[in-house]
Amino acid sequence: MSYVSKLCCTYCATTYPKTDLMNLCPKDGRPLEIIIDVAKVKEELPEFSWYRPQLKSMWRFGSLLALDINNEQDRRNIVSLGEGYTPEIPLHQHPLAKKHHFNLFLKDEGQPHKNFGSNPTGSFKDRGMSMAISMAKQFGVKKVVVPTQGNAGDSLAEYAMKANMESVVIMPDDTPMPILGRVSALAKMHDNVTIELVKGTIKEAGQLMKEKYVPQGYFNMATFQEPGWRIDGKKTLGLELAEPNDGLNQAWSLPDVVLYPTGGGTGILGMWKAFDELQALGLIGDKRPRVISVQSEKTAPVVNAFDSNQDDSTIVEAGETIATGLNVPGGVGHFKVLDIIRKSRGAALAVDENSIKENLKSIYHNYGIWICPEGAATLAAIEPAIERGLIQSGDKVVAFNTGSFEKYLPNVRKLLFV
Amino acid sequence: MSYVSKLCCTYCATTYPKTDLMNLCPKDGRPLEIIIDVAKVKEELPEFSWYRPQLKSMWRFGSLLALDINNEQDRRNIVSLGEGYTPEIPLHQHPLAKKHHFNLFLKDEGQPHKNFGSNPTGSFKDRGMSMAISMAKQFGVKKVVVPTQGNAGDSLAEYAMKANMESVVIMPDDTPMPILGRVSALAKMHDNVTIELVKGTIKEAGQLMKEKYVPQGYFNMATFQEPGWRIDGKKTLGLELAEPNDGLNQAWSLPDVVLYPTGGGTGILGMWKAFDELQALGLIGDKRPRVISVQSEKTAPVVNAFDSNQDDSTIVEAGETIATGLNVPGGVGHFKVLDIIRKSRGAALAVDENSIKENLKSIYHNYGIWICPEGAATLAAIEPAIERGLIQSGDKVVAFNTGSFEKYLPNVRKLLFV
Repeated sequence: MSYVSKLCCTYCATTYPKTDLMNLCPKDGRPLEIIIDVAKVKEELPEFSWYRPQLKSMWRFGSLLALDINNEQDRRNIVSLGEGYTPEIPLHQHPLAKKHHFNLFLKDEGQPHKNFGSNPTGSFKDRGMSMAISMAKQFGVKKVVVPTQGNAGDSLAEYAMKANMESVVIMPDDTPMPILGRVSALAKMHDNVTIELVKGTIKEAGQLMKEKYVPQGYFNMATFQEPGWRIDGKKTLGLELAEPNDGLNQAWSLPDVVLYPTGGGTGILGMWKAFDELQALGLIGDKRPRVISVQSEKTAPVVNAFDSNQDDSTIVEAGETIATGLNVPGGVGHFKVLDIIRKSRGAALAVDENSIKENLKSIYHNYGIWICPEGAATLAAIEPAIERGLIQSGDKVVAFNTGSFEKYLPNVRKLLFV
Repeated sequence: MSYVSKLCCTYCATTYPKTDLMNLCPKDGRPLEIIIDVAKVKEELPEFSWYRPQLKSMWRFGSLLALDINNEQDRRNIVSLGEGYTPEIPLHQHPLAKKHHFNLFLKDEGQPHKNFGSNPTGSFKDRGMSMAISMAKQFGVKKVVVPTQGNAGDSLAEYAMKANMESVVIMPDDTPMPILGRVSALAKMHDNVTIELVKGTIKEAGQLMKEKYVPQGYFNMATFQEPGWRIDGKKTLGLELAEPNDGLNQAWSLPDVVLYPTGGGTGILGMWKAFDELQALGLIGDKRPRVISVQSEKTAPVVNAFDSNQDDSTIVEAGETIATGLNVPGGVGHFKVLDIIRKSRGAALAVDENSIKENLKSIYHNYGIWICPEGAATLAAIEPAIERGLIQSGDKVVAFNTGSFEKYLPNVRKLLFV
C-alpha cells in the first residue's frame, strides 16, 4: 500500500481517515489534500528506492504519490496513458530573456517530445485525471461526472473509458471544437460516455452536475471536489520542476520563478505540496520559487483579490477570453492560491487578450511549439513580472504551457495565418 | 437564370432536361455532368461581364457556373461560406524543383491565406458542397445524405445547416477525430444533423445510405450521385488554375503539369470540364496540362487500371493509408479519370506511405504549411513523375493540397514531433 496517511482540509486542517470517500471538507466546504507520510517514506525507502526514473510518466515518483507503482496492489489500480514527465524547453532566444539576462524555459504539457512522456489528451489535465480515476478505481467507484471549461472533459472521458467506468462530461456549448467534438464522438461511439452542453461556463455546468448527476450516484470529479486526488496528480508538475536530469546523482533544485495560468488553481496547490514533500524528504531546502498566478484580464478573480489584499476571491462575471481554461469566475481553492503566492513572494497578474494572441503566434513561428492560449498568457505575464521586479537577472524562470493549441482550433488557426 | 442547358451522361452522352432531379444516368449508372451553354455566355456577356473578380470565393466565376451570382433569382439559392479562390504557393526551394529546373506551386485548399478565399471546413470538398447544397436548394430539396471518407462529411453538414436542410452524414468509425468529432458535435447540438458510423470505408457507408436513408426520401449527395453538382463546384479549381493574377488584362493560361490526389475523381472531371469551357469561351487554346492522378499504393484502383491499360477500374480491397481520403476502393467515375489522364498524356501514380509522411513533415517544417496526407501524396509523386519524363525542365507544375492537416490530427501530429 501507498504512504498515504490521511486526508486534511487545506483551510481548517481537520483530518479524516484515508479510507473515507469524501468531497469537500464537511466543516467549511474547502478542498481536502492527501497527506503522504514522507517521514515514513524516508525511513523505509532510503537511497531513492521510492523513485522509478526509468518510467516515462508521472508515475515515476512512485512512493511519493497517492498510489505507489512500486506496490503490487496499488499498481493494479493505476490507470495510466503515459501522462506527465514533460520537458522544460529552453527559450534562450526570447527577446525579454536576452534583454534582462534571465534563463527562460517552457514546461510543455501540450505536444509530445522525444524521450519524454506525453499527455494523451494534449493537456496538463491528464495528470490530475490519471490520478483521480486511479483513486476512484481503488475506491470501487463505477460512475463519475465532471463539469469543465474544456480540457478536463476529454481527459476524464478517456481515463474513465480506460478504467471501464461510466462518465458524464458537462461543458459550455462554446467549448473549443476539438474538445467538444472529441467528447461528442466518444459519446456517440461508447455507451458509457455521456456529454451534456450548457450555456455559460463551468459554473452552470457544475449546477447541472449537482442537480442531475450527483443524485444519480455519479461521483463528483470537479476541481477540488474529489478528495485531493487531482491535486496529487498535478503535484507531479512540482516534482518534475525539482527533478535533475539525472535524479540519482545530481542535486534536486527549484527554479527561481514559476509562471502558472490559473483557473481553479489545482496546479499551484499541487506544486506547493510537491515542494513541501521534497523538503521533508531532504532533497531541497526551504527556498521556494516566486509563484506567479496568471489570469486573463477578462476573468481575474485571483488577481482582483491579490491586488485588493483579500484573503479569498470574490466570484466575478465570466468574461470572454480566447484562453477558455481561464474563464473560471471563482473557486473554493483560491484562498490557498492567494496564500501560496504571498508566501512565495510572487504575485497574481492579469494579461490582456492581445498579448495572449501575440505570444501564441510568436512561439509558433519562432519555435514551432504549439502552445495553448493559457500557455501564451503565462508568457504574456513576463513583461509585467519584470516591471514589478518579480523576475531578476540570472533567474531561472519556468513558464507553463498547459496544453496544445490543437485543442483550440479553429480559433487559434485564425491567429497564426491571414 | 444561369446558362445551364441540360444534363449529359459522361459515358453514353445521353442528355436530360436540366429540370430533372436525378442521380446517376439511368441507362448506364454513370455520372452526369451539367452542360453550360458557353456559346450563349460568350454571345450575351462579352468582355468578362460574366466574371466577378472582386468576389473572394469560387462564385467569382459567375455565369460560367451552374448557379449564376449575377442573376437575382440564382443568387437567392447560392449557399456560400467563402469557399474557393485559393492561392498557388510557390515552392521554389523544393529540392527536386531546383535540381530539375521546373517551377513548383502548391494549390493550397487547406488553410486561409491573406487576400484569398478560405474553405470553411478546411478542405476542397467545400467547393463541391457549396454548389451541391445550392443546387439542392434550387430544387427544393429538404433532406440530404452523404457517405464519406471524411472531409465531405463535415462540409455537407455545415452547408446543409446554413441552408436549413436536414442532413445525415455516414462515415467510417475510424475517420480522423477532427471530422468525426465535429460532425458528432453538430449532431449533438442541432436536431437537423445526424451522424452514422460504420465499420469499413465509404463503400459500407454508401450501403447504409441506400438501405436506410434514400428510402426515407433523403437526397443522395454521394460523389457523382447528385447530377453533376459537385463536379461543377470542383470545376472552379480548374478555372482558378487558368485565371491570371489580373483576369481582366492578362492572358488566361494553364500549367504544364497538374498533380491531383484521386479518391472518386470529381476534381479531375471538374478541372477538365473547366478547361473545355474556357476554350469554348476563347480564353485558352486546346493545350492541356498533363494530369497526374495520385493514389496511395495501399488502395490504388485507378493506378492498377492505368498500368494494365484497362478502360475502367476494378474494385480493390480497401487498404490502410494515412491519406484516408484516398482509401476509396472503386468509383463510377474512374473510367473518365482514366480517359482524361490518357488524353492529357499524364499518368496515374501510386506512392508509398513513408513518402507521404516525409513530404507532409518537410512541408510543415520548411514552409509552415499545414498540408494533409493527400496533399503530401501529390508531392510524393513528383519524383516518380520526373523519372517517367512527365515533368520536364521549365514546366509549371501545380500540386494540389486538398485540405489542412488539422483535420487529420492527432495522427499527423505524431509525424511532426517525437
